[in-house]
Amino acid sequence: MPAVFEEHLGALTDGIADLCALVGESLRQGTVSLSTADLALAEEVLGRHDYITYECHRLEASAFTILALPAPAGGQHAVVNLLKSVADLQRMGVLALHIARIVRRRHPAHAVPTELRGPFAAMALHAVRLAGDASTAVQRRDRHRGAELAARDDAVDALHRRVFSVVLEQQWPHGTAAAVDATLLSRYYERFADHAVQIACRAGSRPPRSQSRRRRT
Amino acid sequence: MPAVFEEHLGALTDGIADLCALVGESLRQGTVSLSTADLALAEEVLGRHDYITYECHRLEASAFTILALPAPAGGQHAVVNLLKSVADLQRMGVLALHIARIVRRRHPAHAVPTELRGPFAAMALHAVRLAGDASTAVQRRDRHRGAELAARDDAVDALHRRVFSVVLEQQWPHGTAAAVDATLLSRYYERFADHAVQIACRAGSRPPRSQSRRRRT
Repeated sequence: MPAVFEEHLGALTDGIADLCALVGESLRQGTVSLSTADLALAEEVLGRHDYITYECHRLEASAFTILALPAPAGGQHAVVNLLKSVADLQRMGVLALHIARIVRRRHPAHAVPTELRGPFAAMALHAVRLAGDASTAVQRRDRHRGAELAARDDAVDALHRRVFSVVLEQQWPHGTAAAVDATLLSRYYERFADHAVQIACRAGSRPPRSQSRRRRT
Repeated sequence: MPAVFEEHLGALTDGIADLCALVGESLRQGTVSLSTADLALAEEVLGRHDYITYECHRLEASAFTILALPAPAGGQHAVVNLLKSVADLQRMGVLALHIARIVRRRHPAHAVPTELRGPFAAMALHAVRLAGDASTAVQRRDRHRGAELAARDDAVDALHRRVFSVVLEQQWPHGTAAAVDATLLSRYYERFADHAVQIACRAGSRPPRSQSRRRRT
């Protein structure tokens, strides 16, 4: 019976790793559309959101099905952790969506003034990589990546503070609307990165025996 | 054996309902401190946060213990839903903390200009009530409150948009820092209310037979 459990858990793990990569891709495209005021690309991110929501619901339903199966020791803990990661992925999808919406709202103007495009691009590069690394950690059930990712999340937090310091400079010449957009965007990236770290921190939280049997390298 | 499960589930449910009320109280006090620039009250909110975090960890550990018990049909589903609500409560606690931090950062000045104190007080009154209603829904395992709360959450969203419309008015005279604070604060209230609704929507998701046996009135 545990073999059935393992099989279903493997499929759930794969689905979550794939979705983690996909929301990372949404954030990447959303950021490109933000950097270039590219409405078509923003629309692509917006159009994908229904699929992300659907996948979250599908994975959640699948997790509840697995919970009803006879499980090895610690197996339920692993499923619940994956369920929590689905909730993180749902938020990450919404955050990428929010970024694309700001691009659409400001189009054809740029939502982000020139001097903030660097910090936002850097935040996005970190956040997209964090999503990729979280995906890998989930896939490999690697419990050791969480701490590493948390350290890198500090770089995102530092950029988040940098955005605020630019916006709050006396000579900010772009008006209140641009300040509001920058505040929200910075918060979206910061939250996205944090969710990715949470996912990675939960990866591999399986009982040692079962884990060594299933770990992929 | 299901009696043991029910007993533990009842204690977990009570703990979550209590914590839901407590984070509502933190938001209420945080908002009073925001309305009056009351540093001592903000410090009280800040000081309580460690306890909220501790309670979240305790409830989460308790949920995992319950998951290992023999469960009636649908019992695990109920525990997992409570676990997800603990994650919501953790975020709600952090959001109340963020509000108190803004009060501390701007003290002795007011973080919120006069014309926005009304909308923020209204958002807080809705959000605190949503937390109270979510607490009651959890306690009573009442699955029918979710939709009602979601409808009331719309009022918070409308106020959220109103804050933005005030901040984005041409004649906003309070500068960028106040705009950034208002943007963040509005977002904190909106997210807090949304988490409360999520908790209420999950309440009472238990198998009908078991539910009717346990429901409190």
